[in-house]
Amino acid sequence: MQIHVAISMGDPTGIGPEVIAGALASPIPDAICTVFGQRRVLDPLGLPPWVRLEPAGDPADALHLRWGHPQIQAGRLQVASLDRALDAVIEGRAHALCTAPISKAAALEAGFPFPGHTDYLAHRTGTRDYVMMLAGARLRVVPLTGHVPLRRVPELLTREMVIRGLVVTATALVNDFGVRRPHLALAALNPHAGEAGRIGDEEQRLLVPGLEQARQVLEHDGIEARFTGPLPSDALFVPPVPYDAVVCCYHDQALIPLKMLHRDDGVNITCGLPIVRTSPAHGTAPDIAGRNLANPGSMRAALELAVWLARRRMERPSAAVGFRSPSGAGPRETAP
Amino acid sequence: MQIHVAISMGDPTGIGPEVIAGALASPIPDAICTVFGQRRVLDPLGLPPWVRLEPAGDPADALHLRWGHPQIQAGRLQVASLDRALDAVIEGRAHALCTAPISKAAALEAGFPFPGHTDYLAHRTGTRDYVMMLAGARLRVVPLTGHVPLRRVPELLTREMVIRGLVVTATALVNDFGVRRPHLALAALNPHAGEAGRIGDEEQRLLVPGLEQARQVLEHDGIEARFTGPLPSDALFVPPVPYDAVVCCYHDQALIPLKMLHRDDGVNITCGLPIVRTSPAHGTAPDIAGRNLANPGSMRAALELAVWLARRRMERPSAAVGFRSPSGAGPRETAP
Repeated sequence: MQIHVAISMGDPTGIGPEVIAGALASPIPDAICTVFGQRRVLDPLGLPPWVRLEPAGDPADALHLRWGHPQIQAGRLQVASLDRALDAVIEGRAHALCTAPISKAAALEAGFPFPGHTDYLAHRTGTRDYVMMLAGARLRVVPLTGHVPLRRVPELLTREMVIRGLVVTATALVNDFGVRRPHLALAALNPHAGEAGRIGDEEQRLLVPGLEQARQVLEHDGIEARFTGPLPSDALFVPPVPYDAVVCCYHDQALIPLKMLHRDDGVNITCGLPIVRTSPAHGTAPDIAGRNLANPGSMRAALELAVWLARRRMERPSAAVGFRSPSGAGPRETAP
Repeated sequence: MQIHVAISMGDPTGIGPEVIAGALASPIPDAICTVFGQRRVLDPLGLPPWVRLEPAGDPADALHLRWGHPQIQAGRLQVASLDRALDAVIEGRAHALCTAPISKAAALEAGFPFPGHTDYLAHRTGTRDYVMMLAGARLRVVPLTGHVPLRRVPELLTREMVIRGLVVTATALVNDFGVRRPHLALAALNPHAGEAGRIGDEEQRLLVPGLEQARQVLEHDGIEARFTGPLPSDALFVPPVPYDAVVCCYHDQALIPLKMLHRDDGVNITCGLPIVRTSPAHGTAPDIAGRNLANPGSMRAALELAVWLARRRMERPSAAVGFRSPSGAGPRETAP
C-alpha cells in the first residue's frame, strides 16, 4: 500500500517551495506526495507530474510575494498550507506530515500565536509530552531547550524536562524507529560533566535524579532502554557516536555535532505526537531564496523518513503509542 | 640546528609517562627530547635511547606511587618535573616546552596554587595576555572561558576577553604559525547568534563591539587579519571550517567540534607566551593509567608542533612578539 504524505510548503518567500521541488525531482518509491499551496507559487518551480497539488490559502495573497521578504501575505499562506496539510493527516487522508520551514515573524504577523511548528502540532493534536529530535544516519539529538538565550538555559532546565526528554525519546526509538533496546546518552550541562559538583551543580541536582526517574518510568511502562550519563559533551560526540540518541541540555550542544555530521541531510522529527511529522533541519534561508541555491537533501531525507515512519506505524499499529483518536484529542500519557 | 624540547612528565600516576614513551617510540627528526623526572617512574616504560632523562623531584616520592591515585607525592613530582623543564626553556637550554597532563587536585595538595599549567606559565614568564588554543590540522579553537559552570559563562565573559582572545590569537597565527593574513571567526554565545537581540543580548553588548575593537588594535599593531562574527556556532563548525581559528565563548562550544575532528591528535598551545609551549589535548585519564591503553597520538602531535614552532621562532626571531628577556620578566603588550 502506498504511503500518502501531506507536505506544507512553508514560507513561500523562503527556500521551502524550491527544496520541495528539488527533493521530489525523483519520485519516492511507494509514496504519494501532495503539496498544499498556491499554483502561483508552486507552478514556476516545475513540480514533476508525480507530485499532487491541493489548494491552500487565498490566491490574492500569492500576488504579493517577494523572495526573502516574508510579509503578512506570506505569513497567511504558510499557515493555510500547514493547516490544510495537517487536516489531511488528522482526518486520515494522509499518513504523514512533512513541513517546509516557516517564517516565525510572518507567522506571528498573520496571527499564528506559536513559537514554531512543533508547539502548534502538539496543540492541534492535544499532545502534552513531545520532544524535537534532529536525526541523521550517524547521530540523533534531542535538545531539551530551544531558541532561548544561553544565560537562561540553567534556570529553564528542570528535572521534569530531563525525564520527559529521555522517556519520550526512548519510547519513540522503540516504537517508531524500531530500535530494540535503545541506548540513550544524556549530555551534561557543564564542562567535564561538572566534575562531581566542582564545576556546577546541575548534574547532581537535575540530570542524575532526572535520569534515575526516567529509568523508573520506562521500567513501569515496559519499555526496554539503557541510559548513560550525564556525560561530558566534548567526549560524547566523538564519532562514531555509540548511542541511539543523545538528549542535550541546550540548542548548540545538540546542533553543533548534528550539523557537523549532517549539514545537508538532517531531519527534524517531532517525537511523541499521535501523527508522523518530519521536516528538514534548516530554516527559510531568506538570503538565498528563489535563486535555486538551496540544497534539497534535508527535505528529501525528511520526506523519506516520513514515509518510512508512517509505513512502520501502519504495519505495527502498536507503534503509535499514545495515539488516542484520529482527531488526536486527549493527552498522551507515556511520560509522567 | 637541532631543536631541544624539554618535556615534563606530568602526573606520574596518570597516562603522562606512557604517552611520552609511546610518542617517542620513533625519534622526531632534528630534535633532542629530554624528559624531566624520576628513573623509577620512567625506566619501566622503556624510553628509547634517543630520549634523554634529567632528574627532577625527590626520589623518595617515587616510592609511593599507585596508578590512577595521585597523592601528594605524585603532586610534588609533577610540579618538580614541570619546574625543571620550564627552567631549561627559560634559561635557554631548551627551545620549547611540552607538558604532559597534571592532576590538578594533587598539584593543589603539593602547594601549587594555580588552576593549571597555562596560568602558571604566564605567571613564571610575566605574561599578561595569553590564550589557550586547541589545534589540529582541520580546526583551531580558542575557548575564552574554561572550567567554569555554564551558568557563569555569560557573567564572566567580558568585552576585554573578546578583544584579547582575538588579538592574541591573530598575532600568534601570523607570528608563530606563519599564516599570512589569518581569517578568524568569533562564535556567538546564543543560538542563531542571538537573532539580532531576540535571543540574548551578549552578541550586541559584548561580541560585536569586542570584535570591532580587536580590529582597531590589530590595525594599530600592523597585524593583518580578518574577523568574521559573531556567527551561529552550529553553522560555523560544519567541516571544512574555512577559518584559521575560531574564538569561542565557552569550553564545550570549542571542545565539542575539536574533539569530533581531533580526538587523538589535538594539541594544546599557549599563545602569547614568550616561550613555545604545547601539550596534548587530554587529561591524566586515571581510569586507564598504567595499562598501556592510552593513545600517544596527541602527545606526538604536541611534540612535533613544539619542534615546528620553535624552529620558526629560531629562523624568524621577530616571530616572538612580546618577548622581553630570557627570564621572561615584564608584561607583554600585544593586546590592550
